[in-house]
Amino acid sequence: MARDVWVLHGPNLGILGRREPRLYGKVSLASIDRVIVELGQELGLNVATFQTNHEGALVDRLTVAMDEVDGCLLNPAALSHGSLALADTLRSMTIPVVEVHLTNLYARERDRQISLTGGAVAGVIMGFGPASYELGLHALAAMIAPAKARRKRT
Amino acid sequence: MARDVWVLHGPNLGILGRREPRLYGKVSLASIDRVIVELGQELGLNVATFQTNHEGALVDRLTVAMDEVDGCLLNPAALSHGSLALADTLRSMTIPVVEVHLTNLYARERDRQISLTGGAVAGVIMGFGPASYELGLHALAAMIAPAKARRKRT
Amino acid sequence: MARDVWVLHGPNLGILGRREPRLYGKVSLASIDRVIVELGQELGLNVATFQTNHEGALVDRLTVAMDEVDGCLLNPAALSHGSLALADTLRSMTIPVVEVHLTNLYARERDRQISLTGGAVAGVIMGFGPASYELGLHALAAMIAPAKARRKRT
Amino acid sequence: MARDVWVLHGPNLGILGRREPRLYGKVSLASIDRVIVELGQELGLNVATFQTNHEGALVDRLTVAMDEVDGCLLNPAALSHGSLALADTLRSMTIPVVEVHLTNLYARERDRQISLTGGAVAGVIMGFGPASYELGLHALAAMIAPAKARRKRT
Amino acid sequence: MARDVWVLHGPNLGILGRREPRLYGKVSLASIDRVIVELGQELGLNVATFQTNHEGALVDRLTVAMDEVDGCLLNPAALSHGSLALADTLRSMTIPVVEVHLTNLYARERDRQISLTGGAVAGVIMGFGPASYELGLHALAAMIAPAKARRKRT
Amino acid sequence: MARDVWVLHGPNLGILGRREPRLYGKVSLASIDRVIVELGQELGLNVATFQTNHEGALVDRLTVAMDEVDGCLLNPAALSHGSLALADTLRSMTIPVVEVHLTNLYARERDRQISLTGGAVAGVIMGFGPASYELGLHALAAMIAPAKARRKRT
Amino acid sequence: MARDVWVLHGPNLGILGRREPRLYGKVSLASIDRVIVELGQELGLNVATFQTNHEGALVDRLTVAMDEVDGCLLNPAALSHGSLALADTLRSMTIPVVEVHLTNLYARERDRQISLTGGAVAGVIMGFGPASYELGLHALAAMIAPAKARRKRT
Amino acid sequence: MARDVWVLHGPNLGILGRREPRLYGKVSLASIDRVIVELGQELGLNVATFQTNHEGALVDRLTVAMDEVDGCLLNPAALSHGSLALADTLRSMTIPVVEVHLTNLYARERDRQISLTGGAVAGVIMGFGPASYELGLHALAAMIAPAKARRKRT
Amino acid sequence: MARDVWVLHGPNLGILGRREPRLYGKVSLASIDRVIVELGQELGLNVATFQTNHEGALVDRLTVAMDEVDGCLLNPAALSHGSLALADTLRSMTIPVVEVHLTNLYARERDRQISLTGGAVAGVIMGFGPASYELGLHALAAMIAPAKARRKRT
Amino acid sequence: MARDVWVLHGPNLGILGRREPRLYGKVSLASIDRVIVELGQELGLNVATFQTNHEGALVDRLTVAMDEVDGCLLNPAALSHGSLALADTLRSMTIPVVEVHLTNLYARERDRQISLTGGAVAGVIMGFGPASYELGLHALAAMIAPAKARRKRT
Amino acid sequence: MARDVWVLHGPNLGILGRREPRLYGKVSLASIDRVIVELGQELGLNVATFQTNHEGALVDRLTVAMDEVDGCLLNPAALSHGSLALADTLRSMTIPVVEVHLTNLYARERDRQISLTGGAVAGVIMGFGPASYELGLHALAAMIAPAKARRKRT
Amino acid sequence: MARDVWVLHGPNLGILGRREPRLYGKVSLASIDRVIVELGQELGLNVATFQTNHEGALVDRLTVAMDEVDGCLLNPAALSHGSLALADTLRSMTIPVVEVHLTNLYARERDRQISLTGGAVAGVIMGFGPASYELGLHALAAMIAPAKARRKRT
Repeated sequence: MARDVWVLHGPNLGILGRREPRLYGKVSLASIDRVIVELGQELGLNVATFQTNHEGALVDRLTVAMDEVDGCLLNPAALSHGSLALADTLRSMTIPVVEVHLTNLYARERDRQISLTGGAVAGVIMGFGPASYELGLHALAAMIAPAKARRKRT
Repeated sequence: MARDVWVLHGPNLGILGRREPRLYGKVSLASIDRVIVELGQELGLNVATFQTNHEGALVDRLTVAMDEVDGCLLNPAALSHGSLALADTLRSMTIPVVEVHLTNLYARERDRQISLTGGAVAGVIMGFGPASYELGLHALAAMIAPAKARRKRT
Repeated sequence: MARDVWVLHGPNLGILGRREPRLYGKVSLASIDRVIVELGQELGLNVATFQTNHEGALVDRLTVAMDEVDGCLLNPAALSHGSLALADTLRSMTIPVVEVHLTNLYARERDRQISLTGGAVAGVIMGFGPASYELGLHALAAMIAPAKARRKRT
Repeated sequence: MARDVWVLHGPNLGILGRREPRLYGKVSLASIDRVIVELGQELGLNVATFQTNHEGALVDRLTVAMDEVDGCLLNPAALSHGSLALADTLRSMTIPVVEVHLTNLYARERDRQISLTGGAVAGVIMGFGPASYELGLHALAAMIAPAKARRKRT
Repeated sequence: MARDVWVLHGPNLGILGRREPRLYGKVSLASIDRVIVELGQELGLNVATFQTNHEGALVDRLTVAMDEVDGCLLNPAALSHGSLALADTLRSMTIPVVEVHLTNLYARERDRQISLTGGAVAGVIMGFGPASYELGLHALAAMIAPAKARRKRT
Repeated sequence: MARDVWVLHGPNLGILGRREPRLYGKVSLASIDRVIVELGQELGLNVATFQTNHEGALVDRLTVAMDEVDGCLLNPAALSHGSLALADTLRSMTIPVVEVHLTNLYARERDRQISLTGGAVAGVIMGFGPASYELGLHALAAMIAPAKARRKRT
Repeated sequence: MARDVWVLHGPNLGILGRREPRLYGKVSLASIDRVIVELGQELGLNVATFQTNHEGALVDRLTVAMDEVDGCLLNPAALSHGSLALADTLRSMTIPVVEVHLTNLYARERDRQISLTGGAVAGVIMGFGPASYELGLHALAAMIAPAKARRKRT
Repeated sequence: MARDVWVLHGPNLGILGRREPRLYGKVSLASIDRVIVELGQELGLNVATFQTNHEGALVDRLTVAMDEVDGCLLNPAALSHGSLALADTLRSMTIPVVEVHLTNLYARERDRQISLTGGAVAGVIMGFGPASYELGLHALAAMIAPAKARRKRT
Repeated sequence: MARDVWVLHGPNLGILGRREPRLYGKVSLASIDRVIVELGQELGLNVATFQTNHEGALVDRLTVAMDEVDGCLLNPAALSHGSLALADTLRSMTIPVVEVHLTNLYARERDRQISLTGGAVAGVIMGFGPASYELGLHALAAMIAPAKARRKRT
Repeated sequence: MARDVWVLHGPNLGILGRREPRLYGKVSLASIDRVIVELGQELGLNVATFQTNHEGALVDRLTVAMDEVDGCLLNPAALSHGSLALADTLRSMTIPVVEVHLTNLYARERDRQISLTGGAVAGVIMGFGPASYELGLHALAAMIAPAKARRKRT
Repeated sequence: MARDVWVLHGPNLGILGRREPRLYGKVSLASIDRVIVELGQELGLNVATFQTNHEGALVDRLTVAMDEVDGCLLNPAALSHGSLALADTLRSMTIPVVEVHLTNLYARERDRQISLTGGAVAGVIMGFGPASYELGLHALAAMIAPAKARRKRT
Repeated sequence: MARDVWVLHGPNLGILGRREPRLYGKVSLASIDRVIVELGQELGLNVATFQTNHEGALVDRLTVAMDEVDGCLLNPAALSHGSLALADTLRSMTIPVVEVHLTNLYARERDRQISLTGGAVAGVIMGFGPASYELGLHALAAMIAPAKARRKRT
């Protein structure tokens, strides 16, 4: 039986492909979402995606997620570095959450090197561009249904 | 034709399983190495592993790696946070390197939240325990031979 | 004649009881609201309550409050420590506002010890769990109608 | 042919005139908007104005602006000092943006002296009260249609 | 049967009313003590008060309090911000202690915003002038004999 | 009757056009001065310009300005960030001063983001290249003779 | 008619002459007191001296001083740098206080360069050894009875 | 001929055994004193012990010690981290002083890791619980009468 | 035989009386100079005064002073807090220098509390307004010709 | 039956006696080792000593020590202040380790006052020169075989 | 054909030999200039020297140097650590500049360890006393006419 | 008679020419060594070179150098900024050591601007690429045999 997963994208990810392409690449968010939904099907996961520029909407959505789905993949984008509210929500989650970033935060300017939200989730994958999402979905799948996912990967 | 990969473990990883198990778990390094070598075979990678407690030995080994292998998976452990020498070596690498950590650095004490070496590699995966290595090898495989690795994962 | 008071709850208070119960306890927000409304009746205050995870919605509501009610009881939660926007609104208020916290901020981690919003209100009560709200309503009542409230308490 | 410009006002500017008048003056936002719209007409600019207390709504609006108008005049108010999300949006803008402030940030308390968003726009004008908006519109006009605007000013 | 409570006032509170009245008001300590003793009687508490300018004397008194009374109300005044010794004593207390301040520390200069001692007690009430003591005594009463105190307040 | 205005340029502005042109552009100071003098004539201002690399000479000149002219336009250049002496002079001025910068300080390296002198004048305009001076002269004109200048601009 | 002045010496001044003589010299406190008392007589001041190692005792004594004498000369010694309690007392004084130091604090190690108490008195004289007390008494005399003291000095 | 030694205990050590036993253990101060006095006899030292919660009393006592005894063993407890006055006294001592701590300061929270007083004595022993005092007395004995103490230990 | 002394005034002291009179008072520099010259005559000192807004001119003058006069009284004004060059000159002086300030630096904003130059002279007198200069001349006289100056003062 | 103990000396201790003798004394390491081995015999401990300038070699040796000996005495020298790798090893040790230093770190320059490794061992003894090792061996003996060691000392 | 070089000396170098000789030695500036001029002749360089205590004069001189000479040797002395204006000039230079210091800045107090101006020139030579100038002239010669200078040195 | 000199290269210098050539150039270490050995012959110095990536090996080698050679030229590379152990060794050296860097540390990122090791040697030369070594050898030669080397250079 398939599990449900939400993939949540934070501020400015809606303009991906147009946004500082030297840093974030030219792939659009729609195209990332398509790849992730397909990969979800292979891993036995029903993936739904969601993008918002509102911190509060991410908190709302994660609050609901606890009752609705089996795990979340989250790219908090700029909110990673300062949103204590979002970090608090994540610390309260009763389902696994994996944080992903397109860029490698440790290679960014000082104020972006620490992720407050990253410290409130299971694990973080960053720096692989769109592939960060794919690796993140693999990691999440293993946490939701470890045995089966491991079979898949081998 | 198979590609060659080195998996390099930094200080104190040799005593994994005995070392602060509440943080680092009870799995031994030998057992992680075994899983990684096997996974390498599935991904068409010849994996050789190496552990050292000497910063200089990691620098030496990475220097050689540029001429010997196609990519490296590195867990610099405690050296992540202060070894400018190791970060310099990584910044000079002409082959892809992926950094992995058993624990989620963002959930650790302040002095361990930033990885100097992490800022000198392609990407970082952390917090998934031994699975960090597995995800890292997938990420590395995709960088060495993207097309093929992607087929594998799907 | 009864006075009107709004009790405003900030981010993540909607999941109270489920959220890190070791820190925040097991009482739900609905139950706190019920106690506060009842206490309001005893103190001659019409209490209405409101919870939101959106910083902007708190600013909106406080802006309206100036024209609608006689005072506010506010728990800004995580927004206490970083929301300059909310602090600016509070500094502009023409009615008394009391800030309350379930936990004692001075006993929390360093980044939560200072409340920016707390510096923009009349007074702060923290560390008494749900009773912080009750003490806060007493304090607010005394500011709205000092003489009468004092009689009540004695 | 007239150009289109949006003037965006951030948190707490809706209560201008009532808000800490010693700092921000007694002029209402409506009256500033009226002056700016008129000045726009003289400069050949269709000016539309918008105020919000929500960081996310500013990000949304700027995202749309790239496709809808020729330039923006922005007063991010309290968000200037901490909103990395808004700064990221501004850094992605493909149309000119000018930031204005009623007060002189350099004469304010330490935490308000640096504007993160200010570092992501073309230029900043601050300290002239409502006239900051007028000077900003002149500056913006010159960037959108330099030759014509210059003639205007001389 | 009545419970015993000590109200302890730290340095410079003896000159209350003469001391920077713009900040601390014109009410004398004697008058605050009188109100508190009376309120204690209503709450079934025998209240004794004590003022000292000596950090060591506060430590001495709190040490004795553990064996003599059921709870303490403490205004450590300037010692709040730097006395590790006093904070250590408070952390060792086996009876409840509530800290109160006449002024709102979050609205004071930076060095006074954090209370070391505040982090070692149950809760903190600040900013309400002499009413801080009254609210504090209510809070303390509820901790010493919760059921009865609650009845009192309703 | 025309008013008198001094435009004062600080250190290194004499080599404008030759100095780090990627940052400061290729326009010479002479050419900026010419434009400003002409604009002054349109605005009814007698503009005289002055450049010096000596902090003391700027202090001397501003001291004299109080008795000689009706307002100053000042670009303190590198002195903005560290000259307490110059800031002290500006704080003593009895005529309006507007500070301008060719570059946007908020987009510069950290040590140049705060302007000490900027905190001692009426307002600051920065980031518009030579146009910063033009906008600054408009702002100054409005302060010296508000009504007339406003008519001019509309 | 003679005025009354107290000269208060803080911690470790009792062992003057034996205490780090390279820094503080070889003159004993008794000998300083003798010179000060004599100088007081010439200036028409009844000088009484007092030494204590207890912060609380200095606070007590200053509290009494307000009702008993016309001014104080204070050397808070090590308490200068950290005693907020003493600084609070000084800020409440209704009679003039002059702070003196044997050594020049600006020439000492970093932690001793700022005097919290110094910021709460009229003026500070430091670095002249025992002569700091003599200059301080002159300064105090001028504040208590300006006209007469000035005659003396001229 | 026996030498005289004072063992001085600082704030909160009087409630040892009742104070945060997880940190400081369950042994009472009386029992530590008993062991130390006995050990003193074996080492040819007349040991007298003293406990106070007053910084000033420790300074007083150390001042007297210089004339009365041959060495001191000191546990300044919380005063270690902030008492410049006590550090000044220690720096003036003409007899050897050894500082001891029950807990290992380097394993405590950041604000307790540095001992100001520790930098003003001969040596520091910390982390061995009550045995820190015993080791400290051995160290002190060796400093007072090196040859004999060494014979004792071998 | 009379000694020679230079009194050197730093930046912005030339506009004393007009400069932020709330802080610096309404007395002009000329009037201070007159008082100082007269006082010098009483003390047997030929006093010459000098004011400059140029750091380099102060360094030049002090360099010459070593060969020309017997001591200097210096008010470095804003240069106190940042001029390493001036501090270096002072540290090289072979004649005594006394630093004076009209205001009490410890009561000023944080950046003005430390005087770099103050750490390079014999002693500092601050906070007494124009009387700081008078006290400073007494202090200097005592250093140049101690015996005689002392007689004068008594 | 005798217990086994390793005494490990870190970087630059091999040149003891020649190295900054004002700080570290003129005793050679060989001579310290000789005293320690002898003292070990008296305490029933087989002591072996080891010196290295390589951080990695200390980590290697400690890793082996867990299986080979009953306790370690460690002087990490310069590595104390920055080696997270060594601190990690120490935190993993299953046998007691005591850290010793020849000098008193609290009396050294700021960067040497905190010992990272010191926070990962049982206790620290510092400042007694070569006697630090002797006291450390006593402390270690007591931890390995408490009852017996105590008899010895008494 | 000989090249022209200016050697510029900053503040306080004019009193070299008399200035803190323990740090800066006893050689006069005239004697250094003589050696440098002679060495220049050997290297085919016409060397002119210049000393000033005025930051602005150094900026003036360097500005002219660009049009007059082929390279500069600069000792900015105390201006190295804080003069952004001078660093800006150096960053604009179109001829090579070498910075020299008599003392080794890394061995000086913290505030002198970083040279702002040093970061704006080609290279820095420090710590060799007057020989720093000689080495610097060699370095400069190699940059102006590499081939010839190299022949000289070999 | 020729003197012996060791030239020691730290971490990552072995891959010079391949390592971030934009920063460090394209010249290999072998080629630098060849030039230095030849220059040594001209200066009467037997030069031997050594490269290692191990901090401990540099410490070992410098320890030996004291007994074997007359001086050292050292490029500690990344170890400059953090190796207290290496700095300690250098501070113990009884022969002259000169530190060189290919790049100008003052023009690098903040963490590389200070050299701990640089503060423990005679002097530092940086920013001249391979020529830094040549200048360094000249400087060292002058220290080993000043008179002769000076003749050489002229």
